[in-house]
Amino acid sequence: MEELVQRIKEDGRVLGEGVLKVDSFVTHQVDPNLMEAIGYRFAEVFAESGITKIVTIEASGIAPALFAAKKLNVPMIFARKAKSLTMDEELLTSSVYSFTKQVTSQISISRKFLSSEDKVLIIDDFLANGQAAKGLVELCQQAGAQVDGIGIVIEKSFQDGRELLEEMGMRVVSLARIASLQNGEVEFLEGDA
Amino acid sequence: MEELVQRIKEDGRVLGEGVLKVDSFVTHQVDPNLMEAIGYRFAEVFAESGITKIVTIEASGIAPALFAAKKLNVPMIFARKAKSLTMDEELLTSSVYSFTKQVTSQISISRKFLSSEDKVLIIDDFLANGQAAKGLVELCQQAGAQVDGIGIVIEKSFQDGRELLEEMGMRVVSLARIASLQNGEVEFLEGDA
Repeated sequence: MEELVQRIKEDGRVLGEGVLKVDSFVTHQVDPNLMEAIGYRFAEVFAESGITKIVTIEASGIAPALFAAKKLNVPMIFARKAKSLTMDEELLTSSVYSFTKQVTSQISISRKFLSSEDKVLIIDDFLANGQAAKGLVELCQQAGAQVDGIGIVIEKSFQDGRELLEEMGMRVVSLARIASLQNGEVEFLEGDA
Repeated sequence: MEELVQRIKEDGRVLGEGVLKVDSFVTHQVDPNLMEAIGYRFAEVFAESGITKIVTIEASGIAPALFAAKKLNVPMIFARKAKSLTMDEELLTSSVYSFTKQVTSQISISRKFLSSEDKVLIIDDFLANGQAAKGLVELCQQAGAQVDGIGIVIEKSFQDGRELLEEMGMRVVSLARIASLQNGEVEFLEGDA
């Protein structure tokens, strides 16, 4: 997605250790126009898939997932990283290790929101080692829902997340694919859409 | 906001202890069409205020804040509840006690995203005792930004959050105002917009 790649070139910042910081338009401050364009692109790619639910994880996945859900006219569910006192029902849960935060956390979705009738599009902001997306796939599978694809805003193609998800039989659609962050420079691969 | 009040009547669920559960359309599963209508209503109310930034807090505030930001064509910033490894810059921070989760947490926004040039509209999903909104106001004030108003999706008017914020000189605009949750019934006051 050219508009996204250009924005990463202009406003992304490479920190040490393979970190790409996009906190001025994705992960902290959010550009709603870009998020709409991203969400609509995912909706376009999966327009014929009969998607019934968009699933993401709090917090940075919510913006692109919401616009995709708006365009496909389906509900969006965001998995929770911590259990709330008002989440009293039966939960789908999975463990996710975050290399960024260096903790393993439980993620969960109330079982009542996913069923074997559902065809799910998973959306997340980043794909690195694939642990978050894998956790989301597992939540959907626990409910018997079919995962039709995984839409990723920014893929770090030099990490093994995409391979992990494809080995699980998943279709991965990444709008920006990053080949390398070496020497403080962002090198891109051709994106999927 | 009649559409929101109707939806609360249909799909909201009163738990014990003054808890209104709206997890099927606001706080866990999200209805993007309703969120758009809500965001656009806030945008309409504050259309003439010269708002430059929308500020909310992860995670349930993001959806209504994003659509308001889209309509007003300004960035949306969501305050973080936990510090990320990639948030390396100087932070605005404030303490918030959550009665729902029974913990005090630090919330933060990178200082670079707010300045004395900004006119801020704060948006959140719930207003109960006002601790989260107060924390967001404090973050904006630390940056010297002007807070023009606080847009709330659902206000528990039987708690003292609105009073607290109004005593701080804030304009509070709540789309649904709940007078009481006694006996498992939702009683409404007239909403602000």
